[in-house]
Amino acid sequence: MNKVDLHVSPYVQDHYPQDFAWCYGCGYNNEAGLKFKTRWDGDETITEYVPRPEHIAIPGFVYGGLIASLIDCHSTGSASLAFHRQNGHTLGDGTPVPRCVTAMLKVDFIRPTPHGETLSARGRIVSLGEKKAVIATDLYAGETLVVKGEVVAVLAPETMTQKGR
Amino acid sequence: MNKVDLHVSPYVQDHYPQDFAWCYGCGYNNEAGLKFKTRWDGDETITEYVPRPEHIAIPGFVYGGLIASLIDCHSTGSASLAFHRQNGHTLGDGTPVPRCVTAMLKVDFIRPTPHGETLSARGRIVSLGEKKAVIATDLYAGETLVVKGEVVAVLAPETMTQKGR
Repeated sequence: MNKVDLHVSPYVQDHYPQDFAWCYGCGYNNEAGLKFKTRWDGDETITEYVPRPEHIAIPGFVYGGLIASLIDCHSTGSASLAFHRQNGHTLGDGTPVPRCVTAMLKVDFIRPTPHGETLSARGRIVSLGEKKAVIATDLYAGETLVVKGEVVAVLAPETMTQKGR
Repeated sequence: MNKVDLHVSPYVQDHYPQDFAWCYGCGYNNEAGLKFKTRWDGDETITEYVPRPEHIAIPGFVYGGLIASLIDCHSTGSASLAFHRQNGHTLGDGTPVPRCVTAMLKVDFIRPTPHGETLSARGRIVSLGEKKAVIATDLYAGETLVVKGEVVAVLAPETMTQKGR
């Protein structure tokens, strides 16, 4: 159950329909999950996260799979925000937020990501069609650019959403 | 502490040096981690994993970030196996296994991955240089091909391994 005030929260994941808020990366129903949260920041999107102590690769550095997960949910969240805006809606206006899934994920690890810093994924909507969005992301550890991501996100197909009901 | 018999285990991660076996994805020291394990299967490599109940995206389907994590560690493990073999060594011969990190990770989600099946990542060594390996992976859920991955893995740079000591 989501206890957030939906008239106030700028985070798209807080507005996902209950049935589709079980994602390990960003679903508010998933108790064991990571609970990534994505919002607009001007024309960019942003997701900030502090990795858990166990999220390491080699000691002192963040696990790449965690970074890929962050970019994944950040990008599907960014796509949801962009589709919702394109449809003429704002968060909290009572219209369900479109739920997206990832068709392609690419992550370039430019330099090792130090553990202990806040990670900030900053997204740019590269293209937005009727059903498909391309999101480019720069990931910072503190102020340092460490990773670049690119995701093709698509509206979740009915074959997936029907099974969830 | 790794309690596995190193004369017997075919899994490369069991042979990682103690200091570098903390990876959230595949380190035997990481109690909270996923403990992926990769071995040769002929000229291919294989990593099998059953996702936990919480590893879902939309109910009924596996979380993409978990799949990216699996392909990540499977590929760095495959690269370690390939470098070790190229260096004339076999697992358990007393020579430390080279530890690799990911430079680039690309994941194509061909179709939704059903939750509840065993995932099998099957890797092919596309190229192997002195310090760089390219690994292509087909991921199966049961018998169904669901995801294709490509990873550029490199030997862990000294800037990373020294901090771990």
